[in-house]
Amino acid sequence: MRAEIIAVGSELLTPYRLDTNSLFLTDELHQLGVRVVHKAIVGDTPDEMLSSFRHALDRADVIVSSGGLGPTDDDRTRWTVAELLGRKLRTDDDVLRKIQERFRRFGRTMPEINARQALIIEGATILPNPRGTAPGQWVESNGHIVILLPGVPHELRALFEAEVKPRLSKLGSAQRLFTRDLRICGLFESAVEQLVSPLYAMYPDVETTILATARGIELHPQIWCSDPVRAGQILDEMVERMSLALGENLVSTRGEALEEIIAQLLTENRATIAVAESCTGGLLAERLTKVPGSSAYFLGGVVCYSNEMKSALVGVPPEMIQSKGAVSEEVARALADGIRKRAGATFGLGVTGIAGPGGGTPEKPAGLVHIALADEHAVREKKFQLPGDRELIRNFATLNALDMVRRYFLYPAHGKS
Amino acid sequence: MRAEIIAVGSELLTPYRLDTNSLFLTDELHQLGVRVVHKAIVGDTPDEMLSSFRHALDRADVIVSSGGLGPTDDDRTRWTVAELLGRKLRTDDDVLRKIQERFRRFGRTMPEINARQALIIEGATILPNPRGTAPGQWVESNGHIVILLPGVPHELRALFEAEVKPRLSKLGSAQRLFTRDLRICGLFESAVEQLVSPLYAMYPDVETTILATARGIELHPQIWCSDPVRAGQILDEMVERMSLALGENLVSTRGEALEEIIAQLLTENRATIAVAESCTGGLLAERLTKVPGSSAYFLGGVVCYSNEMKSALVGVPPEMIQSKGAVSEEVARALADGIRKRAGATFGLGVTGIAGPGGGTPEKPAGLVHIALADEHAVREKKFQLPGDRELIRNFATLNALDMVRRYFLYPAHGKS
Repeated sequence: MRAEIIAVGSELLTPYRLDTNSLFLTDELHQLGVRVVHKAIVGDTPDEMLSSFRHALDRADVIVSSGGLGPTDDDRTRWTVAELLGRKLRTDDDVLRKIQERFRRFGRTMPEINARQALIIEGATILPNPRGTAPGQWVESNGHIVILLPGVPHELRALFEAEVKPRLSKLGSAQRLFTRDLRICGLFESAVEQLVSPLYAMYPDVETTILATARGIELHPQIWCSDPVRAGQILDEMVERMSLALGENLVSTRGEALEEIIAQLLTENRATIAVAESCTGGLLAERLTKVPGSSAYFLGGVVCYSNEMKSALVGVPPEMIQSKGAVSEEVARALADGIRKRAGATFGLGVTGIAGPGGGTPEKPAGLVHIALADEHAVREKKFQLPGDRELIRNFATLNALDMVRRYFLYPAHGKS
Repeated sequence: MRAEIIAVGSELLTPYRLDTNSLFLTDELHQLGVRVVHKAIVGDTPDEMLSSFRHALDRADVIVSSGGLGPTDDDRTRWTVAELLGRKLRTDDDVLRKIQERFRRFGRTMPEINARQALIIEGATILPNPRGTAPGQWVESNGHIVILLPGVPHELRALFEAEVKPRLSKLGSAQRLFTRDLRICGLFESAVEQLVSPLYAMYPDVETTILATARGIELHPQIWCSDPVRAGQILDEMVERMSLALGENLVSTRGEALEEIIAQLLTENRATIAVAESCTGGLLAERLTKVPGSSAYFLGGVVCYSNEMKSALVGVPPEMIQSKGAVSEEVARALADGIRKRAGATFGLGVTGIAGPGGGTPEKPAGLVHIALADEHAVREKKFQLPGDRELIRNFATLNALDMVRRYFLYPAHGKS
């Protein structure tokens, strides 16, 4: 079965908004054995809408639309689909009553125009909306299925889960999509590609998407298969080979983010951490505290932008800053060890660098970053020259700092000094 | 003139990637007087591609495609458009030479398959690609224009700027899109809507998009107009009325982010700031240091997750934490005043709260946040009960903390204690 997703809404044709519902819908549909072959984004002009839905019927067995079910003149999805299929709209009394009740519950009277939300396409199955006023609709016609969903993301999700999923799971093809989600840190996209691409020919049924993000590189191998056991075996085997190729650069194989892996490592080892960061400006602490429950291992951090704060709060000797410079191996080490001692943590992580665009010199250009990790015995340090603009440099520096913690647990004896 | 944007690439039909090129293209096209009426996203299957391009020709005067110009078998955009228009592809020797040169410059020999990137549609204008191997193509046929662009964002942008913009600016209609970008903080989306929607009827030619983001609410009024002066007057007048309606909640009218407004205010007033944050976990410092040159006014911050760090690094009395709790008005005030003094800053900003999902109690549920701002004379404090999950609570708390600084400068005498 082939699906097309149509997102309806003039605001989706502005430079400010993307149709993000389709990511959720694609994921769900693929798992139900329905392959998304096309996505369309259309405004609320009747002609455009009709043209989009008509063309979708040419291409797809299932059309899933989001949006255009509101009460205003702009909300044209019901009319469009009714016109396209040559059907009438009728007011459903039961739906109307529920909408009125919903307004009453919030202490308001239903505005007249909301009665439009009770208009149902002849022959359609009503899909109750637990989170809003507009119900979804499921219309079958000439072997096609048209599913109308509201555009508000949490309404769409709840409605899909409760009403669409059970119906489609009976109809979807036996072939479903199975995937893995590998996270990699410490290699550029091209290097990852080079390491894993020889595997593509070995697994011709697996399609692999590679994705470079500010959080590292992601690999998404995927296979359409009617046999879950076989799909799992193929993917596991391929992931195993990918792991061997990627070595210590592989962070996780089930989509865990780097900060989640670190959370696991610190928790398992009953260790705590504190950070002292300059050029990352709080991003390192932010990433560590993103994980719920991080207060169990994250004691705190210092964002020491000024030299005075580096000395006052972390105890970096002012003479060291003066002689070596704030961005130097020595200061990174002093930050790591200083914050570890002041916080009474197992580990201290120190970052100092130049995020740019200003502040660089020929000897110390923007992108130069020193990162140090201290435990009670020693401090290991690494120097990076990172590419990109201010935002990318801050992100890559954070990533590399977090990765230093991960690698510590993999190779505790390496890089000590 | 009406445009359709087609994004080509199977990876855009996965749950992992969105077509972000279309945001840039939409913005540019609207400013050139070309209205985007439809967007399509299609994989690299020849039939699907042909169907998409054919339907686009029905709807639009201009088709702008991104992607599918690479050297592999999957890159089918040239073939699709040639087939659709009934034209041949020919190898352009000049383009081929440039591609070979490009490889030579990077010390490599051009792989044979890259010769495909020199295939040009009969009658097409070649659009040189300053950033990559695949040139763009501009094809006219029966009053339609089809523009083929590479999918790599920075190549697409550079090529559009240099080659497409000058050509389209001669052709686009006299009506161009004029916009404003208002940022609002301190109101929910529904409240903003209620305050500004009475203006919609007064300005029937202006279409306003409202957008709720983790960075606050945005309002984008826009008007298609052939007279820039008139468009400016209408928008200015409407924005003026919106400003009156929104009052002190209006952060900016030209798209400046809250942190940029604060950067201006602090710089103009030769003031410095330091922060002590708990539940926002570094996000507050991160936001402040996002702005290039922030080292001029941001001295540093402390992320004090543990009670010990609140006392050791910011001087919050342990007895106070014990008697009032770490999440309390008193501790927020002590954090703000403590970090101000320790950093020697004009302002100290303190945040303490419960981001959840764990850590809440019936008296102090997740979402409870105390924020305090200290200057040398006094400390003002505000209590918030924020909605949403951990990520939203952290974002809203950061937003409100930053906004407290902005409001201080607007109303320096308010809220002192």
